[in-house]
This record gives sequence, C-alpha cells and structure tokens, in this order.
Amino acid sequence: MIKVKIVSRQQRRYVELLTNAKLPQLEITEDPHQATVLIADPPLIATSLNNYPHLQWLQSTYAGIDALIQPNLRQDYQLTNIRGIFGPLIAEYIMGQILNHQRHFFRYALQQQQQQWQPIPYQSIAGKTMVIIGTGTIGQHLAKVAAVFGCHIIGINRSGIAASADFNHTYAITAIDTALAQADYVVSILPATSQTNDLFDQQHLKHCKNALFFNVGRGNSVNENGLLDALEQHYLQHAFLDVFKHEPLPADHLFWHHPQITITPHIAAESFPEQVFTIFKDNYLRFIQQQKLIYSIDFKREY
Amino acid sequence: MIKVKIVSRQQRRYVELLTNAKLPQLEITEDPHQATVLIADPPLIATSLNNYPHLQWLQSTYAGIDALIQPNLRQDYQLTNIRGIFGPLIAEYIMGQILNHQRHFFRYALQQQQQQWQPIPYQSIAGKTMVIIGTGTIGQHLAKVAAVFGCHIIGINRSGIAASADFNHTYAITAIDTALAQADYVVSILPATSQTNDLFDQQHLKHCKNALFFNVGRGNSVNENGLLDALEQHYLQHAFLDVFKHEPLPADHLFWHHPQITITPHIAAESFPEQVFTIFKDNYLRFIQQQKLIYSIDFKREY
Repeated sequence: MIKVKIVSRQQRRYVELLTNAKLPQLEITEDPHQATVLIADPPLIATSLNNYPHLQWLQSTYAGIDALIQPNLRQDYQLTNIRGIFGPLIAEYIMGQILNHQRHFFRYALQQQQQQWQPIPYQSIAGKTMVIIGTGTIGQHLAKVAAVFGCHIIGINRSGIAASADFNHTYAITAIDTALAQADYVVSILPATSQTNDLFDQQHLKHCKNALFFNVGRGNSVNENGLLDALEQHYLQHAFLDVFKHEPLPADHLFWHHPQITITPHIAAESFPEQVFTIFKDNYLRFIQQQKLIYSIDFKREY
Repeated sequence: MIKVKIVSRQQRRYVELLTNAKLPQLEITEDPHQATVLIADPPLIATSLNNYPHLQWLQSTYAGIDALIQPNLRQDYQLTNIRGIFGPLIAEYIMGQILNHQRHFFRYALQQQQQQWQPIPYQSIAGKTMVIIGTGTIGQHLAKVAAVFGCHIIGINRSGIAASADFNHTYAITAIDTALAQADYVVSILPATSQTNDLFDQQHLKHCKNALFFNVGRGNSVNENGLLDALEQHYLQHAFLDVFKHEPLPADHLFWHHPQITITPHIAAESFPEQVFTIFKDNYLRFIQQQKLIYSIDFKREY
C-alpha cells in the first residue's frame, strides 16, 4: 500500500476527495513516519519536511512552491506543483481590476449613494498595450483573454520567443525596459526565484509611462521603495498587488493607505481542491506505474 | 454642394472631424432650411425634425434611434444609425461588472481601508451560464468575449437560430422562460420597440434562479415593479442597470438606494465621435454616389 498524508488548510476536503476516489493501493495516513506521498500546502509543510523519513513524492496544492526551494531544505524527493488551472482565475482578476478602474465602477458606486447621474469620460481598453512578464500557461491564457478585448499584447520571458500567437511581440527579459516604455498595463506573473528578486525596482519602473501595474506572481519581485517612487513620479498610475514580500501584509505597512495602491489578500488565483485533486489523481496513477510525473519541479531551475 | 448640419452634444468635435476630412461636395451649414443631411444625437433632434424642409438623410450618432421612431414623427427621410462599434464597450461593461461582483472587489476595497487581510470565498465565472437577449452585433461580440472566460452562452432572438458559433444554444423569444431558468447572468441588449415594452416583468423574471440581471439595451424593456419583486423574491440576486424608462433617473426614484441595484448613467457604450465619423464618412461617399447606405433603419420594423 502507498501511504499518503495530507497537510493542508483544506484538509477535510482533500480527505473527502481522496476517500471517494478509491484510488488503487492508496491508504491515507496521519503518521509522518509512514507517509511516502504528501499532498501539501507549501508554507504549511516547509518547516516539518524532515519529519518524513520515507518521503518520495510531494504534490503541492499551490502553483508557487518557493517555500520548498529554500536552500536549507531537503531536495531528495520528487516535487510536483499544479499548473494549467490558474489561467482563467488570473485573467478574471486582471481584466476585472482593469475594467473596474478604466470604467470607473467605484466612482459610480459613490455617485449612486448621492443619487448623482453624471457620466464620467472613459476610454475603451481596446488598443491598449499589455505587457505580460512571464509567458507560461497563465501568461498565455491572460494574453488570449486580453486579446479578445482588443489589447495589444507584449510578452517578456527569458528567450524572447513568443509563447503563443496571442503575443504581438515578445522580448527577452534583458530588454524589459523597452517593453515597459510601451505599456498601458504591466502584469507580473513571475514565480519567486533568486533571479526575480526586486526585478521591479526604480531602475526598471522609471521606463513606464503612467502605466497600471499588477503583481499576481510573487511578492519578491517588487522592490517596495522602487514601487512607491514610481507611483509618486507617475511612472505608474496605480498598482494592484495581490502578493507581498510578507503575507499577510503587516497592519502597519505603508501600502494599506496609499491612494494609488489596491491590495487584495492573495486571492487572484485560488487552488480549488477539486482541480488540485484532478492533477494529483493523474500523477498518482503515473506514480504507481513508475511513469514520469507531470508538473515536476527542477530544484536547480527553482520552478 | 451638399449642406450638412450637426446637432450633437459633441458639436465641436464633429465640426473638427468634418472640417479635417475635406469630403467632396460637402459644406457645413448652421441653417436648418438649407440642410439636406444631418449628423445628430436622436434626443436632441427629435423635437425639431420639422424645421428641416430639405432633409434627405439623417446619420444618427447613437445606436438607439427610438427617439426618432415615435409615431408622431416624420419618416420621409433616410435614417441610418451606427453599429459594430458598441460590442467591445458593452462587453467591457458586462464582464467588468460581473467580475467586480463575483470577485468581491468592492468588499476588498472596504477591507483595505481597515487594513484587513481576509480572503473571501469565490467562484470562477468559468462554467456559468450567460443568457443574452438580443443576438445582433453587440450580443455576438459579448458572446465571444464571455466564451473566452469559459461561460456557457445561450442566445435569445426572434428566430431561435444561432447568430454565431459562440452561442451554445439559441432559443426563440417565445421560449424565454426556459432560458431564464438556466441563467446565472441575464443580459438584455434589446432595442426599444413596441414589442420589447415591459418584457422583463414578474411573469418572466420569476423563472430566474438567483441570477444577475443586466440591462444595457433600453429602459423600456424592464417593468420596474416586476424587477423589484424579482429582487425581493431572490429570483434575481442583483440588477445592474445602465438604462431607464426616464433618463436621467429621477433623484427620488426607489432604485437609487436599493442594495441589490447598481446604477450607471447610460455609459455602458458611448458613441466616440471618431468612430461615428468613420461610419458617417463611409455612408457619405455612398450617399453622393446614390448608393445604398449602410446601417439603414426600417421605420416599420423600428430598428
């Protein structure tokens, strides 16, 4: 039998899904010493990884596995994450925030409270340029959705090679400033790696021209002072931040009351257990047949 | 020379566009007695139509020409409206309102004011069913955009024949109740005709099951008491209204302070002069060559 342990905020739901699925040779265990397979939220499992002497495979319930690739942590097991299910949720978040801003829905809500009938001039998002940093499955899905709204899409990745036909242009990360200078919307979907730390600093952000900035990747990529400066200088018009260097964002953080910053509590894309479980199940069937797992993490590449 | 008069809230912009375009045989006039062609906002021109003895053609700056098809008004001229330019703006409005609602952006803004980090459960709009009443160019564009978000699209029109491949099902208007019973989102894009008066009444709305209702067509289609009843009974969860029987919505109207109603001041789709002018120009070149005009209104069909 293969002993599987679950370590998640959604513990009960995963136990239910696992029980109902009746997967071959699978037994749920509570005992770290027996578990060979883990289904786990990275931040919850990171500090107790050493309690699992027989760990062979960990299926992350998150896309972001940065908590598990810290240098002091063991890397003697297979780590897989989840992919392909966040594209739609991230696209909803980004397009929703853009439309909300561009079409003045908050201002209309205030006007409604005062029975005020007052059209506010606006522009369509058709023809605006969106720069997407990170052109994996999420970035590709966002590109597809934004393209239907008529946006011009620029991608940025390591190679400078277009990831899909929805990207009108693609630049290598080394040419990021050229791309930022064209952006109406800047969207970072970068994972947390040692290479993405403080990428969005004063040096790069000063190339923006009154752009809207979105971070739905990881908080590490934003240099906080650089961002504040860019907002003050109007290189950026507004920042929509869903991820932060420290989460939850501390109550005394400057960002909370900044009129040009919109904060959401890391909800742009949620791991719905049903979707995570579909990936786990697929991988589990590969695991018992000793086939290659999908969405495998390369500890060296950090993603 | 062909004498053209402009009657619009955007008067100055149209004069500028017309002047710069240097169209053949065209002269701008201020004199109603000389004008043979009008570029006009329907509500502004409706009451003075009789002042134009030589009127041959009126290019409406709006899609909605209901102000000009009232029974007491003359119909001895060619009337053309604008089409094809509202689809993107309407899709922005509808998707923006849906995402704003479904992803709790207003609630997060309130939480931010209190430095509160509190994720709120949500569902993706993927898999939700949108019923679009009116499957002309606007409805077709909305269908295309909503389909990219993963919505299931049902169209309603007179024939029951699908207007494009983005409609998963299409019902004839006679089967509207069957469609409403399946809707997560109900979107009316109907023009104001004698046939659409009070279509959304208690009788029909009671088939909805906690749906979101959007009216971006014309106010005449909503029976106000029927709507209020449907909100109270939770046939409808929330109504997003951009158009009303009387505009501006009177300051003492019940809708303003209703917690389940979102009001916007007829801004879902604006006639941007540049786009209207492109259509006028095309039609003008046809007009001087005595060719058939595009986007012609049939006074009998009322659209």
